[in-house]
Amino acid sequence: MYTRESLIELIRQAKQERKLTWGEIAQHVGVPEIHCTAALLGQGTLQLHQAERAVELLGLPDEAAQMLTVPPYRGGVSMPPTDPVLYRLYEIILVYGPAFKEIVHEKFGDGIMSAIDFEMHVERESNPHGDRVRVIMSGKYLPYRTF
Amino acid sequence: MYTRESLIELIRQAKQERKLTWGEIAQHVGVPEIHCTAALLGQGTLQLHQAERAVELLGLPDEAAQMLTVPPYRGGVSMPPTDPVLYRLYEIILVYGPAFKEIVHEKFGDGIMSAIDFEMHVERESNPHGDRVRVIMSGKYLPYRTF
Amino acid sequence: MYTRESLIELIRQAKQERKLTWGEIAQHVGVPEIHCTAALLGQGTLQLHQAERAVELLGLPDEAAQMLTVPPYRGGVSMPPTDPVLYRLYEIILVYGPAFKEIVHEKFGDGIMSAIDFEMHVERESNPHGDRVRVIMSGKYLPYRTF
Amino acid sequence: MYTRESLIELIRQAKQERKLTWGEIAQHVGVPEIHCTAALLGQGTLQLHQAERAVELLGLPDEAAQMLTVPPYRGGVSMPPTDPVLYRLYEIILVYGPAFKEIVHEKFGDGIMSAIDFEMHVERESNPHGDRVRVIMSGKYLPYRTF
Amino acid sequence: MYTRESLIELIRQAKQERKLTWGEIAQHVGVPEIHCTAALLGQGTLQLHQAERAVELLGLPDEAAQMLTVPPYRGGVSMPPTDPVLYRLYEIILVYGPAFKEIVHEKFGDGIMSAIDFEMHVERESNPHGDRVRVIMSGKYLPYRTF
Amino acid sequence: MYTRESLIELIRQAKQERKLTWGEIAQHVGVPEIHCTAALLGQGTLQLHQAERAVELLGLPDEAAQMLTVPPYRGGVSMPPTDPVLYRLYEIILVYGPAFKEIVHEKFGDGIMSAIDFEMHVERESNPHGDRVRVIMSGKYLPYRTF
Amino acid sequence: MYTRESLIELIRQAKQERKLTWGEIAQHVGVPEIHCTAALLGQGTLQLHQAERAVELLGLPDEAAQMLTVPPYRGGVSMPPTDPVLYRLYEIILVYGPAFKEIVHEKFGDGIMSAIDFEMHVERESNPHGDRVRVIMSGKYLPYRTF
Amino acid sequence: MYTRESLIELIRQAKQERKLTWGEIAQHVGVPEIHCTAALLGQGTLQLHQAERAVELLGLPDEAAQMLTVPPYRGGVSMPPTDPVLYRLYEIILVYGPAFKEIVHEKFGDGIMSAIDFEMHVERESNPHGDRVRVIMSGKYLPYRTF
Amino acid sequence: MYTRESLIELIRQAKQERKLTWGEIAQHVGVPEIHCTAALLGQGTLQLHQAERAVELLGLPDEAAQMLTVPPYRGGVSMPPTDPVLYRLYEIILVYGPAFKEIVHEKFGDGIMSAIDFEMHVERESNPHGDRVRVIMSGKYLPYRTF
Amino acid sequence: MYTRESLIELIRQAKQERKLTWGEIAQHVGVPEIHCTAALLGQGTLQLHQAERAVELLGLPDEAAQMLTVPPYRGGVSMPPTDPVLYRLYEIILVYGPAFKEIVHEKFGDGIMSAIDFEMHVERESNPHGDRVRVIMSGKYLPYRTF
Repeated sequence: MYTRESLIELIRQAKQERKLTWGEIAQHVGVPEIHCTAALLGQGTLQLHQAERAVELLGLPDEAAQMLTVPPYRGGVSMPPTDPVLYRLYEIILVYGPAFKEIVHEKFGDGIMSAIDFEMHVERESNPHGDRVRVIMSGKYLPYRTF
Repeated sequence: MYTRESLIELIRQAKQERKLTWGEIAQHVGVPEIHCTAALLGQGTLQLHQAERAVELLGLPDEAAQMLTVPPYRGGVSMPPTDPVLYRLYEIILVYGPAFKEIVHEKFGDGIMSAIDFEMHVERESNPHGDRVRVIMSGKYLPYRTF
Repeated sequence: MYTRESLIELIRQAKQERKLTWGEIAQHVGVPEIHCTAALLGQGTLQLHQAERAVELLGLPDEAAQMLTVPPYRGGVSMPPTDPVLYRLYEIILVYGPAFKEIVHEKFGDGIMSAIDFEMHVERESNPHGDRVRVIMSGKYLPYRTF
Repeated sequence: MYTRESLIELIRQAKQERKLTWGEIAQHVGVPEIHCTAALLGQGTLQLHQAERAVELLGLPDEAAQMLTVPPYRGGVSMPPTDPVLYRLYEIILVYGPAFKEIVHEKFGDGIMSAIDFEMHVERESNPHGDRVRVIMSGKYLPYRTF
Repeated sequence: MYTRESLIELIRQAKQERKLTWGEIAQHVGVPEIHCTAALLGQGTLQLHQAERAVELLGLPDEAAQMLTVPPYRGGVSMPPTDPVLYRLYEIILVYGPAFKEIVHEKFGDGIMSAIDFEMHVERESNPHGDRVRVIMSGKYLPYRTF
Repeated sequence: MYTRESLIELIRQAKQERKLTWGEIAQHVGVPEIHCTAALLGQGTLQLHQAERAVELLGLPDEAAQMLTVPPYRGGVSMPPTDPVLYRLYEIILVYGPAFKEIVHEKFGDGIMSAIDFEMHVERESNPHGDRVRVIMSGKYLPYRTF
Repeated sequence: MYTRESLIELIRQAKQERKLTWGEIAQHVGVPEIHCTAALLGQGTLQLHQAERAVELLGLPDEAAQMLTVPPYRGGVSMPPTDPVLYRLYEIILVYGPAFKEIVHEKFGDGIMSAIDFEMHVERESNPHGDRVRVIMSGKYLPYRTF
Repeated sequence: MYTRESLIELIRQAKQERKLTWGEIAQHVGVPEIHCTAALLGQGTLQLHQAERAVELLGLPDEAAQMLTVPPYRGGVSMPPTDPVLYRLYEIILVYGPAFKEIVHEKFGDGIMSAIDFEMHVERESNPHGDRVRVIMSGKYLPYRTF
Repeated sequence: MYTRESLIELIRQAKQERKLTWGEIAQHVGVPEIHCTAALLGQGTLQLHQAERAVELLGLPDEAAQMLTVPPYRGGVSMPPTDPVLYRLYEIILVYGPAFKEIVHEKFGDGIMSAIDFEMHVERESNPHGDRVRVIMSGKYLPYRTF
Repeated sequence: MYTRESLIELIRQAKQERKLTWGEIAQHVGVPEIHCTAALLGQGTLQLHQAERAVELLGLPDEAAQMLTVPPYRGGVSMPPTDPVLYRLYEIILVYGPAFKEIVHEKFGDGIMSAIDFEMHVERESNPHGDRVRVIMSGKYLPYRTF
């Protein structure tokens, strides 16, 4: 019986041995890249038929499919992040957070952008001055309960 | 002579008295909403001609324009954020951060998305199941120095 | 022009001078006790007509009504709470949190109880062995986005 | 001889192998769901006859029953919780904590809701706008000692 | 109208001017020393007739009596305490805490010593090798809820 | 050769197998309950003849006696304590600490209660309203050095 | 009436205006330099006759003498210290702490060096390779209570 | 090949088996007690000829001598220290730190006591009122760079 | 009499009114830019004749010169820094720190680079791919004390 | 299959066995010392042909070359650093950080020194008063995005 940690380790090894990218795995599984990768890194779940496709592609043991449908204890980054890729996201909150809050309230009212009914995509944007990372987030607006 | 804090307070009051939205101010100043708001909240700078337009619209004292061009000590959110609007962004790092890092490296190589040569936009997305907050970030890809 | 802090202080004083309870204020305003009290303590908003009723009852200045409709920066407890009333809630997370997570997933799937589309009530429950505090929370179940 | 950690691991595996839910285990043991689950996750105790029923159902070694009656070192969540299910409870304290304290004192006096003489239940509430998680807590009111 | 902080400051000054000890005040008020002192330092409440006696003895303004009956936000020590008098209590938990937990469970079962239904006394104990501080605590045993 | 941790584990197992209480062990060893338990949990030392009695009663290997006389690195509780039994002691410092400091200075002068030349006892106190945990601490008064 | 903070500020100013060194003040007061300075900076007490000499030398108001005999809330450095003079002491604990503990136990047994019955001196030591700071600490050895 | 941790463990065991004190080892090695002990506990280095003497006395494997000359990652105490022996040093900084800083600047100017060109000794001082721990530190005075 | 904080504020204002750069001030004072700026921001000292030149250029009150020679309590950045300019320095330690330590030991032995006998310069380096910030640090090598 | 940690351990051992310095390895690999060392310590990447040269020199298994090209999770120092070599860098930020920020903005405008497009060198500087550590950093200036 695998623990979540050992399953993740297994996935990483299988991916490396079969020379697969996260993008290829995601396409095979049929789930957007970030979400599929998050699930395989223990930060989300797949539906059973999706998990089975991942298991098949990566050659994982059968019980792995079931395990990938079980909600994990989320939270895979120690804060503040020491890695520069992740720290820059953290810095964006530090610097643009207060303005973000103002604009959300101005455009929507007293509520939030959901991080649960939420989608995220990362794209490579060509640019003559140097390519850019383009991140698109889309989260449902949730208004505070009124009475 | 104003401190940065008192200038920000002055801006908030002028905005409220003149019943202006951040969106209207940004349009008048000619800078994207989040960036203009961040600058007026002490988390960024405006160019002088932009600052002068903000000063005029908000009826601020003349010296304010100069002050808005001075780089501030950035970082306007205490971490982890207690406000739910900002916490959800923080949670997105906790949950999708590891996958984001993998995908950035897969699509670009060993480098990061800049938070300096960076743009951010927030839009309201109509949706029959409930409108959505759409956040677009675009940061220059910066590869680690190679030799 | 009032800051949020000075408005809250004003509300506390008016409440004390007029010998009103939070319960009486909430009834007059027409919003459940905890939610009305949270809004008046700077942790939530009222709708304008509700805010006007609070302003009238407490004899606050007219502009206060408008201010009570503006989303605040939420988060009014420093953690871990040093006050025993609040610490016990914190302890409940420490002790029953892991079981709560299991049961939510078992009854609903991979998702959470919303703290935004959320209601909370506190009642006094008579009991021959000593009265009890009864807390009822009701939050919308939000499933994680599937693909 | 088992450590607490290895006993918990054993319980999780037995539950999975026998395809039991926490709800079914709790019903067999005769203890409310959250409380039974907390005890089996090392955050509480069962009485001996209850523990024996759990041991029987899960096919645990005999000595496990005795171990489940020994008070554990409680506290199974690292704070602030990174998992969204638990963080929302934490956020409820941040946002509604100050109002909760006011209302408890108004309804009861200078005292607290016990987290020891305490019960908690989680229910699924049907709702046309989306089902809701309903949490009921009942803790004895404990007045501060007077003289 | 006084804030709690200004009331405490007033009490300290009145005590100093009238050359009263906490012991004398407590005797006049009719409440054990530590508890009376805690209440006057904003960490507890007095009953109204007790508060009136404190007000009279210290020559405080009339409204102070009412204020001393209002439950405060408790927690008057920043942790870990830097003052050696308080740090030694903290160290006692560090060193004797695990043994204390074992003995409480052995003598009582799965439960705790209440810090609410609780009394504490400090006495000077004569001793030829140097006098000793004797602290007596008495808290109600609260068993965990069983089912 | 045993590490301290493995010796403590051995002691816990021997105690459980021989169905001994900490009280019985302490009585056999001739040291007060809390102090004997603390020593056996790696938070104190025994004198050699006492350690030998513990070794004999628990059937430990011979070298254990010597090890129990070696001063450990003290500090066996992570702070703030998550376990309710220990947290209540911590809360007592938060709430009664400032008053305790005042009273110690009033009764003794500028000095502290020693946590080294220190004794602690826990007793069960019968009470018709529910039994009580009675804790007695006695620490030598240490005056600050004067010149 | 002075608060401790305002008294300390007054002392600093008087010292500067009268061009006195801490060494001169200490000699006049008759207390070792570090101890006299600590007391005047709110980290210790003087005896009344010593305090009166300090008051006279510095031209402080009469009531200051009494205030300097009142035990303060000790702890005047935020940790870890950011100032290099103090950080080096902190670093000495980090680096030599474990060896210090071993040697104290080897030379004395299971006990500690008191920080209460304690003296500390700082001297300038001439040295051809550059003068040295010489710190002498002397604290009473306190053995743990044995039974 | 040994890691530093395993080498330290080996040294502790060899010391215990050969019934050597740190003092005896230091004398044999020819390095002051605290410094020799620190080096053997992984907080410093020995010169090769000194390391060889330690290896010989303790019967360590040959390669250990080389390893003891390699600069370690220093810092062997988690802060604040929970062990009372070390905490008292920490408390000395809290209480006497501000005075220490004043006196160093008064006697030397704007600079610090080095913790690198530094020596430390611990002695037992006989005293009719109870023996004392005497700590002598000597660090080179380092003036801030002037221009 | 000025506090350090009010003196720094005065310097900032005088600099702005007289439209001086830190570079110009440093040149007039005769101290390298970073060091002169650090001293005027309360993180270092000037020699008296240098301070007098700064006072004259900025039109500060006479007593300011004396104050600028008094060693401050150093440490003007809260860590981790939230401002991106400073965070990048912090990140350099996170990423290159371990390699830096290895190279220092390889080139010098067991010792450190002094941060006291230390100089730092920042220059603008022209570069066709975008100008670069060039930082040069020079600190005396301090070997650990050997015996 | 190696984890990053085991690969680093392998590299350290190979370096020690073959008696190579980081400087020699860096020269062979053709990458500046600090950068090559950082990469081999898991804080950076090498290009494949460079990694192959490192593998060959150190006699590592073939797959190691590929692993050394994979971006690691950066951040190899726990903060604040306890080791004096690294702490001094940290202290430089504490003391010279605010001046550094002023000078960068004065010389360049509103932007930062990149820690990604970044080079760092450490040199030994001969000096009659004692050799010095010379650190040269060169990072691209990144201006904040303007509109």
